[in-house]
Amino acid sequence: MKSEPTPATRSIVVERTMPHPPEKIWRALTQSALVGEWLMENDFEARAGATFTFRAKPMGNWNGIVHCEVTVFEPPRRLVYTWKGGIVQNAPPSSSLDSVVEWTLTRVAGGTRVRMEHSGFRPQNESAYTTMSGGWPRILERLENVAAERA
Amino acid sequence: MKSEPTPATRSIVVERTMPHPPEKIWRALTQSALVGEWLMENDFEARAGATFTFRAKPMGNWNGIVHCEVTVFEPPRRLVYTWKGGIVQNAPPSSSLDSVVEWTLTRVAGGTRVRMEHSGFRPQNESAYTTMSGGWPRILERLENVAAERA
Repeated sequence: MKSEPTPATRSIVVERTMPHPPEKIWRALTQSALVGEWLMENDFEARAGATFTFRAKPMGNWNGIVHCEVTVFEPPRRLVYTWKGGIVQNAPPSSSLDSVVEWTLTRVAGGTRVRMEHSGFRPQNESAYTTMSGGWPRILERLENVAAERA
Repeated sequence: MKSEPTPATRSIVVERTMPHPPEKIWRALTQSALVGEWLMENDFEARAGATFTFRAKPMGNWNGIVHCEVTVFEPPRRLVYTWKGGIVQNAPPSSSLDSVVEWTLTRVAGGTRVRMEHSGFRPQNESAYTTMSGGWPRILERLENVAAERA
């Protein structure tokens, strides 16, 4: 077979069982104002095909904007959006993130198993990978709190 | 629903397309002597239910031994084994790894998509998570080389 150089990509997976039914987690995952509380300010729209952005304070080379598109919207089980991060200084090879975030909710005894997979980190995304590996477990903790108190 | 505190667990996923057919990758994944070249010395046996160990030089608190059991063996597509790491100084909460490694091979144009998911890292496994997040992409690169040259 012919050789094509394909560098490895990495994903971050975080799983957490939350003591709430899937419908409650789903509301926290998909109502724009609630998403703003546990993740970032956004103009998320709850439908497949919607494009939206997350906006945070710029940090280092990152302009604070994430460009997204909802690719799967299956209440209350599965939500997928692309996640493209803008880098201000963008010399090749681009270290912009071209990635995907996938949420899967599974009803289990006592609540919901929440699985978040953030895939597509290339070797040049090392810094984002490290930052977000540490960040996602805390983000899921906040999601659980928002679901408990506000959804 | 009743609340049960379940800390988040994290997984490391590495995916890489290799320019070889699945059967060739499978041999590199499951022949003990070949596995020793890209991963660690081992007494791996190619059958579901087999228990085996990986052995490396002790490093820090780690005694260099990983205790494993093959739980899924489906040539040439899917191989799963448990991965339990021994820690010499084992004060609670134990920082021993109680984890799972899952290999999935998918035939694609030009070769095989290889997906490795190492799941089950708890908050107290932070150090192992960080070390192995950096290590697995290099291990898959070695796997590809061993498949190319020796399998």
